Amino acid sequence: MIDDALVIFTPSGKRGRFALGTPVLTAARALGVDLDSVCGGRGICSKCQISPGYGEFAKHGVTVAADALSPWNSVEERYKSIRGMIDGRRLGCQAQVMGDVVIDVPPESQVHKQVIRKSATMRDMVMDPATRLLYLEVDEPDMEEPSGDFERLCKALADQWQVSDIAADLPILRRLQPALRKGGWKVTVALHKGNHDARHRVLDIWPGYHEGGLYGLAVDLGSTTIAAHLCDLADGTVLASAGVMNPQIRFGEDLMSRVSYAMMNPGGDVEMTRAVRAAINDLAVSIASEAGVAATAIYEIVFVCNPVMHHLLLGIDPVELGQAPFALATSGSISLDASDLDLAAVNLAARVYVLPCIAGHVGADCAAVALAEEPDKSKDMVLIVDVGTNAELLLGNESRVLACSSPTGPAFEGAQISSGQRAAPGAIERVEIDPATKEPRFKVIGSDLWSTDPGFAEATAASGITGICGSGIIEAVAEMRMAGLVDARGLIGSAEQTGSARMQAEGRTHAYLLHDGSAENGPRILVTQGDIRAIQLAKSALYAGARLLMDEMGIDQVDRVVLAGAFGAHISPKHAMVLGMIPDAPLSHVFSAGNAAGTGARIALCSRAARDAIEATVTRIHKVETAIEPRFQEHFVAANAIPHATAPFPELAKIVTLPEPSFNTHGSGDDGGRKRRRG
Amino acid sequence: MIDDALVIFTPSGKRGRFALGTPVLTAARALGVDLDSVCGGRGICSKCQISPGYGEFAKHGVTVAADALSPWNSVEERYKSIRGMIDGRRLGCQAQVMGDVVIDVPPESQVHKQVIRKSATMRDMVMDPATRLLYLEVDEPDMEEPSGDFERLCKALADQWQVSDIAADLPILRRLQPALRKGGWKVTVALHKGNHDARHRVLDIWPGYHEGGLYGLAVDLGSTTIAAHLCDLADGTVLASAGVMNPQIRFGEDLMSRVSYAMMNPGGDVEMTRAVRAAINDLAVSIASEAGVAATAIYEIVFVCNPVMHHLLLGIDPVELGQAPFALATSGSISLDASDLDLAAVNLAARVYVLPCIAGHVGADCAAVALAEEPDKSKDMVLIVDVGTNAELLLGNESRVLACSSPTGPAFEGAQISSGQRAAPGAIERVEIDPATKEPRFKVIGSDLWSTDPGFAEATAASGITGICGSGIIEAVAEMRMAGLVDARGLIGSAEQTGSARMQAEGRTHAYLLHDGSAENGPRILVTQGDIRAIQLAKSALYAGARLLMDEMGIDQVDRVVLAGAFGAHISPKHAMVLGMIPDAPLSHVFSAGNAAGTGARIALCSRAARDAIEATVTRIHKVETAIEPRFQEHFVAANAIPHATAPFPELAKIVTLPEPSFNTHGSGDDGGRKRRRG
Repeated sequence: MIDDALVIFTPSGKRGRFALGTPVLTAARALGVDLDSVCGGRGICSKCQISPGYGEFAKHGVTVAADALSPWNSVEERYKSIRGMIDGRRLGCQAQVMGDVVIDVPPESQVHKQVIRKSATMRDMVMDPATRLLYLEVDEPDMEEPSGDFERLCKALADQWQVSDIAADLPILRRLQPALRKGGWKVTVALHKGNHDARHRVLDIWPGYHEGGLYGLAVDLGSTTIAAHLCDLADGTVLASAGVMNPQIRFGEDLMSRVSYAMMNPGGDVEMTRAVRAAINDLAVSIASEAGVAATAIYEIVFVCNPVMHHLLLGIDPVELGQAPFALATSGSISLDASDLDLAAVNLAARVYVLPCIAGHVGADCAAVALAEEPDKSKDMVLIVDVGTNAELLLGNESRVLACSSPTGPAFEGAQISSGQRAAPGAIERVEIDPATKEPRFKVIGSDLWSTDPGFAEATAASGITGICGSGIIEAVAEMRMAGLVDARGLIGSAEQTGSARMQAEGRTHAYLLHDGSAENGPRILVTQGDIRAIQLAKSALYAGARLLMDEMGIDQVDRVVLAGAFGAHISPKHAMVLGMIPDAPLSHVFSAGNAAGTGARIALCSRAARDAIEATVTRIHKVETAIEPRFQEHFVAANAIPHATAPFPELAKIVTLPEPSFNTHGSGDDGGRKRRRG
Repeated sequence: MIDDALVIFTPSGKRGRFALGTPVLTAARALGVDLDSVCGGRGICSKCQISPGYGEFAKHGVTVAADALSPWNSVEERYKSIRGMIDGRRLGCQAQVMGDVVIDVPPESQVHKQVIRKSATMRDMVMDPATRLLYLEVDEPDMEEPSGDFERLCKALADQWQVSDIAADLPILRRLQPALRKGGWKVTVALHKGNHDARHRVLDIWPGYHEGGLYGLAVDLGSTTIAAHLCDLADGTVLASAGVMNPQIRFGEDLMSRVSYAMMNPGGDVEMTRAVRAAINDLAVSIASEAGVAATAIYEIVFVCNPVMHHLLLGIDPVELGQAPFALATSGSISLDASDLDLAAVNLAARVYVLPCIAGHVGADCAAVALAEEPDKSKDMVLIVDVGTNAELLLGNESRVLACSSPTGPAFEGAQISSGQRAAPGAIERVEIDPATKEPRFKVIGSDLWSTDPGFAEATAASGITGICGSGIIEAVAEMRMAGLVDARGLIGSAEQTGSARMQAEGRTHAYLLHDGSAENGPRILVTQGDIRAIQLAKSALYAGARLLMDEMGIDQVDRVVLAGAFGAHISPKHAMVLGMIPDAPLSHVFSAGNAAGTGARIALCSRAARDAIEATVTRIHKVETAIEPRFQEHFVAANAIPHATAPFPELAKIVTLPEPSFNTHGSGDDGGRKRRRG
């Protein structure tokens, strides 16, 4: 009589022979097959659902009989009747092996499930969260063999989950005894182990079996904007995303003015720390409310940010970051309690992970971009530009990666622009200007219609037309350049020079009337000479950073450009290249990747392995310091022209022919190339 | 030419050959000789002082020449001129081996120095503190190889002190950069590693070289009294000792009334937790002030306490400790931050260690007594009685140790006694009654004179005579029993029955006038029938606990009795035995050990090895539960008589012959044997 059977798991292909009667979950565990279970095989959680295959499997050389698994039992019947189950599925902890069988583990039953990402340029992510739920049955106290309830909980974790070295903070110890007694000595714990922690930590405890409700916040803490994703820690789903302005803006628009504020005002850094922590706390509340979950169900927060924001978040005076040698107080990743950051809205026991910084000007946000975009695994030479108030740039491939930051200022985020605003309904986000008539058309956020389309007025009546956001101003300036309204030096032509009545004199300069506002639909929206100058400064800094990395790498051309940033997905590659924001490249090789830093934060939130990986990667990224590099200033000056004073843009020339007017009537230089402070 | 020499260290006897020119400190380290150094051999700290021996050492077979060490150098000259140095001493880091030499390491130059204790019954203690000072030279930041200041500090700790795995909380990271720059990249850190910690933690940082000033608090948190010792963590010296009443007394005098308070009043446990933490915080302030140090220089606190106080200190509702099976929320040792306990007066980064509990009624205080008195290493069968509101008892020897607790109530601490007070100047602490005249004489705290001595009135004029403390009431009752004023059942005789006018009628009972107070020197002090009853209840509980342990051990006699407790040193063994507080034993084998729990706390404060040892020991101590043991009640009732209703006290009979009057005029039992609640 044959008393064992062959069990083959797909998609892993793992196989082994097991005694008849072995539960499928037990077989999976013995083979190291990734099959989830929260209740530890007690038929409660249903996480271990599997799909047995029947019939002939030529590939595996087995034929699976109809009775290869034990018949449905009462636990499965009960579960299906109450909670429902997909036809053909079984509970892995209940179904027993009775003959050779092929068992498929569906993605949702895997702990380390792959989260398929939408964008082709981004890699998939494997779930490996630091916090998970475990259901336990704890021994009752015995007066003859006295031991603490916590010690018996630890024993249950060791016996039932092979987890040892457990810690619990006082608030959990306080709740432990009532929970155990209410649950009849059965409890569910949220157990956390960060990638540097020596011990597991109990973050929460519930009487009996508890399902779901572990959330994490991935925060991209920018100089201008704080963006966050609320994710389900079980499967990585993004439940809500939200952003707020960084309230530190009132202390200075760019990083260096905040460092100055800290230097000039005793306690100024503390003030800024308090402001940003309060904003993050409020953001946690509002994003949780948007997703319909309690903020106290947030158990983990991952932060990515530039070094100045990093220090201000942690409560470290950023003064050393304002002067050479730009020494970070600490560069490694940081694990701490959310309460250390005064984040009182999230769970009392919530843990925080801050990605490592690369250098004094290249922060955890750049590390997050590297984690999301993986230049270190790229076959071709890729330039990744994370557009923000402080831009981070990465250049490299699998053999070498360079990084730098560049002080672009907040112009790309709509700040320092006369009609600038952040990306919100009513903001102009797309612009086209007819080269012949010089007449514009545009789209505003909240409507898919062009401003010249029928029904546009009605469609935008609610939001109005309130200003221009970052992607809008990039397109407006590039379109003005293509339409001959702005010359290579960035000067706006007059009505006479351009033949367009939309050119309005403003003192000694001119502005282009993009939208003639009214009482009904908002203000007059102009693109002024000051706006052009702000964009020129920003794009020059960006280009100069890229160029410096290319010098260091010894290359004149990159194979691929990735535009990232909070509004990276909204930047038109063609317009970015017309502006000369990025080095010349075939337009088909320029991609918009969206908020790669935020994506990196999300990956780190969902995966301890990713945290380990990026910590290893940052040590191999070579940082190029722009602040003290004379060539940076040279590149910056040369990049002031639109698209560039000296560099040829052959790929751009293949698709766009730029008119070359000159509106300089003063015969002298302008201030477009003036040096500016890092910001 | 011989290019190395023999170096012999005493008292360790370690020896080795070293190249000529090797500093003595280097040789000591290579051999694992315990030679202290804070500055790492830079001639700053002078902790590595050694005493070279010269001439012939027959025992070691060497002759040490006068030039066996290098001549005095400028560092030593400078140190000696500024700070002074004992003649014959050298700095181990400066003196180099130039020939065979015998080098003595004086006790004060040893890290693991032995602290010689005064009492013969107590063991010596070896310093092995969890927090120590280390002086470091940190690399300056390098823009080409960017790294955080903290990462370079960690590198210095690894390179210069072979310490890895370092953590620092945010407040330290905040202070790191200014300290490094102020100290010219030289700093001293206070580094902590508890016995369960995976990582070292920087608790404090100072620019440059910093000496001394690491203090610890050993706290014996009793139901009635909170006693603390302030110790220097470098050498274990006790700088100050102080005690305050536990403010929880207002919620209930004994433990069970506090548990009841928590059960009856929602939030009552929180209220009690707040009260006791505030009292500890205040005690830290006052004890530091008494020692003339800042409370913020307290970096470690060790707590010992009974289980109910343990839970109330930690903020855990003690309700489960009030009912079988008396389950502790946690029994293991606990390491946490002082801030977790709201102890804001001590250093922000101060760490707390709470000794493990043995069982639901046998707490960390009992563990501390075991650590101090080491019954598990005793050759003879020792009974250790820790007298307090809740008494802990240990019985055993090197082969087996039993423990139990007994609810004595606060009578031994002067509470529940009509003229009771805590031990303070003015309290009667010694009593003698002349068996013939029935006249008393007594001593009060603050004077060495008997009340019958000339000059007594003047000596006590300042304090007055204010009441009776614990040791005083024990002696008073025992003396009354010996003088025939109290019978074996505990009844006080009348003036007629005893022939003494000091017997005063109080309703249907009598009281003994110990001191006739006046306007000048305080109240009338009587020993009432109620006082006798309170002492009977307390001593019966104590005896019953001891007897229960003896039953469990299968013995009828113990070899040795140790009286411990906050006032253990003040209890007269003879009087204790007349009362029947303890089982009969040869009087020469009854010792007063002082506050053994407090001593255990001090040992744990000064030694990580001791923490490891007691954690291992408690797992081997077998707990006997008195609360549900019917024999405990039987023993308790039988022990109500003075000294005992049934047990013979042959050793006591050898030294004292007790009169056997009977003052029971009612012909019926009294209430002395009534059952009482645990407390």
